[in-house]
Amino acid sequence: MTASKPKTEESFLAGIFDVVSPKEAPLPAAVIKHREGWDNLGRNYRKRCQRVRHLCSGGSKIVEMGKAIELLEGVLEPFDRVAIEGDNQKQADFLARTLVKVDPGKIHDLHMVQSVIALPEHVEIFEKGIARKVDFSYSGPQAARLSALLESGKIEIGSIHTYLELYARYFIDLTPQVALVAADYADRHGNLYTGYSTEDTPVLCEATKFRNGIVIAQVNGIKDRLPRVDIQSDWIDFIIQADKPYHMEPLFTRDPAAITETQILIAMLCLKGIYAPYQVQSLNHGVGFNTAAIELLLPTYGEQLGLKGKICSNFILNPHPTMIPAIEAGWVKSIHSPGGELGMENYVRARPDIFFVGPDGNMRSNRAYAQMAGLYGIDMFIGSTLQIDQYGNSSTATAQRIAGFGGAPNIGGDPPGRRHATGAWMKAGAEYAFQQQLIGPMPRGKKLVVQAVETFAEGMRPTFVEELDAWKLAEKYGFPQPPVMIYADNITHLVTEAGIAQLHKCGSLAERSAAIKAVAGYTPLGITASAKMTEQLRKTGIVQTPEDLGIDPTQAVRSLLAAQNIRDLVEISRGLYEPPVRFRNW
Amino acid sequence: MTASKPKTEESFLAGIFDVVSPKEAPLPAAVIKHREGWDNLGRNYRKRCQRVRHLCSGGSKIVEMGKAIELLEGVLEPFDRVAIEGDNQKQADFLARTLVKVDPGKIHDLHMVQSVIALPEHVEIFEKGIARKVDFSYSGPQAARLSALLESGKIEIGSIHTYLELYARYFIDLTPQVALVAADYADRHGNLYTGYSTEDTPVLCEATKFRNGIVIAQVNGIKDRLPRVDIQSDWIDFIIQADKPYHMEPLFTRDPAAITETQILIAMLCLKGIYAPYQVQSLNHGVGFNTAAIELLLPTYGEQLGLKGKICSNFILNPHPTMIPAIEAGWVKSIHSPGGELGMENYVRARPDIFFVGPDGNMRSNRAYAQMAGLYGIDMFIGSTLQIDQYGNSSTATAQRIAGFGGAPNIGGDPPGRRHATGAWMKAGAEYAFQQQLIGPMPRGKKLVVQAVETFAEGMRPTFVEELDAWKLAEKYGFPQPPVMIYADNITHLVTEAGIAQLHKCGSLAERSAAIKAVAGYTPLGITASAKMTEQLRKTGIVQTPEDLGIDPTQAVRSLLAAQNIRDLVEISRGLYEPPVRFRNW
Repeated sequence: MTASKPKTEESFLAGIFDVVSPKEAPLPAAVIKHREGWDNLGRNYRKRCQRVRHLCSGGSKIVEMGKAIELLEGVLEPFDRVAIEGDNQKQADFLARTLVKVDPGKIHDLHMVQSVIALPEHVEIFEKGIARKVDFSYSGPQAARLSALLESGKIEIGSIHTYLELYARYFIDLTPQVALVAADYADRHGNLYTGYSTEDTPVLCEATKFRNGIVIAQVNGIKDRLPRVDIQSDWIDFIIQADKPYHMEPLFTRDPAAITETQILIAMLCLKGIYAPYQVQSLNHGVGFNTAAIELLLPTYGEQLGLKGKICSNFILNPHPTMIPAIEAGWVKSIHSPGGELGMENYVRARPDIFFVGPDGNMRSNRAYAQMAGLYGIDMFIGSTLQIDQYGNSSTATAQRIAGFGGAPNIGGDPPGRRHATGAWMKAGAEYAFQQQLIGPMPRGKKLVVQAVETFAEGMRPTFVEELDAWKLAEKYGFPQPPVMIYADNITHLVTEAGIAQLHKCGSLAERSAAIKAVAGYTPLGITASAKMTEQLRKTGIVQTPEDLGIDPTQAVRSLLAAQNIRDLVEISRGLYEPPVRFRNW
Repeated sequence: MTASKPKTEESFLAGIFDVVSPKEAPLPAAVIKHREGWDNLGRNYRKRCQRVRHLCSGGSKIVEMGKAIELLEGVLEPFDRVAIEGDNQKQADFLARTLVKVDPGKIHDLHMVQSVIALPEHVEIFEKGIARKVDFSYSGPQAARLSALLESGKIEIGSIHTYLELYARYFIDLTPQVALVAADYADRHGNLYTGYSTEDTPVLCEATKFRNGIVIAQVNGIKDRLPRVDIQSDWIDFIIQADKPYHMEPLFTRDPAAITETQILIAMLCLKGIYAPYQVQSLNHGVGFNTAAIELLLPTYGEQLGLKGKICSNFILNPHPTMIPAIEAGWVKSIHSPGGELGMENYVRARPDIFFVGPDGNMRSNRAYAQMAGLYGIDMFIGSTLQIDQYGNSSTATAQRIAGFGGAPNIGGDPPGRRHATGAWMKAGAEYAFQQQLIGPMPRGKKLVVQAVETFAEGMRPTFVEELDAWKLAEKYGFPQPPVMIYADNITHLVTEAGIAQLHKCGSLAERSAAIKAVAGYTPLGITASAKMTEQLRKTGIVQTPEDLGIDPTQAVRSLLAAQNIRDLVEISRGLYEPPVRFRNW
């Protein structure tokens, strides 16, 4: 390669892609001269673009739908790292369906680096040999199939990450060579509008595009003018209008009608036993019926407890429909969202004082920033899990399901660099029994990390186990460590229908195990609890039963919920909430 | 306010600002109807814009330089939260100089939320009463003045954060009402080019703009066409061309000529005692002469140790000039940068295989993503500090200086949600003596966090102290906690000229104190070390002297450095590195 060659390539491409090469302030001669041998990524990028230049007509970035397979076969190379979007809700499903159709003789052994394994096509590419290795965060809908695929030897799992961790690696050792993303609209210059469901798109595009990678966007439509620009055209190489709007999952919708009285009791315990004494202002709710119950109790039970204005003002949260009553009742100051939630678009637009909306009146979600804010900016994470061991480690993996973690390990973790002191944080830190052993007589706060679970989950499967199934999974597939969602030393409070165990107040592993057993009910682990020890833990306040908290379980009734069903939510929202069909039963 | 009023305001503004109001898919009638009372932020935004509409000519966002004071007095309101950029390197200095000039009778009691307190003007606004409260991350250059200001009662400090933590709060409870940012260029539509020194701008603009805040950008110039768009015009309200290019600090430049033999010895200990056994591939170097020495030893001593290809392939790092020899020698695969470094622009452009460069050939730094990557994606942080206490807590604060932390608490922290397993991470986790007590017999890795310090710093000030000065500072000013940079339980290795203390291998606070004392030399803390205890710690390998590691201190000579001075760096860079004048002495 001669020193002048890249320049030629650039001028050549400049004619095709408006923005591929420098438009102004071209590289100084010295830079061009001494760049030789240091621009392999750029050369490879230009080579890939050349292969597909004939698919773009007239200097445009737009490729016809019918040429999508050809485009992917042209830009991809075997063993590429490929990020397919793949978020918690939004799916670049047209591109996923296209990727399945490429010729495995040409394109094979791809290394997928994606947030979520959600669609059947995400698994099929491994069955066909198009892809070989995956690094991901969450695989809820395909957890069982993923496990089967692993057994067949057709997939290699790099690691299971939390979202922010996977994004981090996009800038270190897992930078995608090709990113396949989804947007609402593009304009003819190649700018994208991702609006409400922006989710992972910005971080994906930035990591890929600034390392000479290729970004291909599927869009629902092409418009002359966008409501606003979410991703600038410089970051996008190719655009394809998909056959139908991208797929979205209403992951955070919980029908109030399905909330049980046990869940209401747990929610009451949380509000009176944790939210109230710590005066939790900034927080994140994991998805689930327990937290949905808490949301629906704020304007009723929370009001009775006199907590309005004292708790729950600032959230990191997808627009949960079950938040509507609390928002309408004036409980909430702000909500920043990692993603959207189907049906909540108009409600969010009508509440711009609460949600983060843009100049066009529509929300821009952003998972990278929301996860960052959820890690560092809030006092409490409350969520649920499938299994908890005798030490307090929890996991959603079972021997037949590799579910992944999503955001829980991050938001449910104590941020190492947090230094701003709120009352809740300082109180939990002062109570942390291990603290002195770890850092001496130095004050430091602690994030509240709450696991709210029923002692038995669906199908009478015990939540509390001596050893996590994650161990079996790790052994079976040779993982370097069992996939744990939240490690024991991060949990401060464990809440079941039997009561609250304040795990961070336990001074030893033995004491913590005893506290866990004390609230583990009639599970195999719970029945090994020593009555004497439990009594002692109640005296020191480490364990609190409903009775200890002055809560009468018979008052945990459904009429306490601010909305009884989805229809109530629609009404309270003044018709702004438009639930997906599957949630409409009237 | 009637239901139709916001609509009117919007149409009114649509004529002035092209992008302020919806351009397409206007809000549904139901949304407008039921938004009443929920759009106070939007109304306030529009009111502010109206006050200054006469400053923008012809629908443009561009405001003349001479009207800058009027602009700020028009958009600001007393008690506003204001983010002035304020990064580690790039400074919106024109806007800072303008802010000092506003009438404190009109604009007062601002709450500044900014990364860095760097310029005299950042302090002056408090002296004049224009601002009253500050939440920040770092105040290196103004640390002493900040302390004096606090004493005078003219400033209230909210909290001292790590960068990522402050960005997090931008989305929770510290969202700016007005952001004052700096860019290289704007085009006439209001798009910004921030290029090499993008730093904090994207996260600042997004948080502000999506909560009905106002973003004002100072630019070095206005161009018809930008090399690329870094910040889309939708996120920018007003643009002012500044009187001169924004100020930049070459914070990460260390002259090899100033590196001492003690620092070289410490660097050798780090390479042989930590980098080698852990095979550290992904890492961040803090700023300082110790890490500069390590960088300059890679192609010499590192090569002798046979470490090339085994360590130091992926960095999160500003473009340190002292990295040039290692990069040229082929040690490095990738570097993602939180910010630029003055003089390294062309070198970076000539090494696009290493740095994250855009389609225009220029780097885009991004502190939010680099800090995220530095937290979650790397195996080691190595940095320095001013004081370390007997437990291992460290701080850069002294009684007369409130310096802040920058990124160290974040990158130097063990990420709670990390789940991907590398050899280095698993090895450190397996060695962590406290682990079993914290989470039971569950494997988990640990990030390597190394503090490399000389036992005595400048002016013979001992680095090792019984109690941090941070305590006095906290007491004096009523901080809720002493400002600690890195807490003891996050540090794995402490390195001085006396040797390495592997703190994470210590099973108790007492053992850890003994290990610290063993490498604390002749400091007041060091001389209390028990010779017997030190001997025992050497036997167990917790403490390693140069001798234990087979390092002869007399071999720690300056000729080992791959570059002896700045001029060498320029030569090795083939003239691409263009050091700032203050570093040129030839």
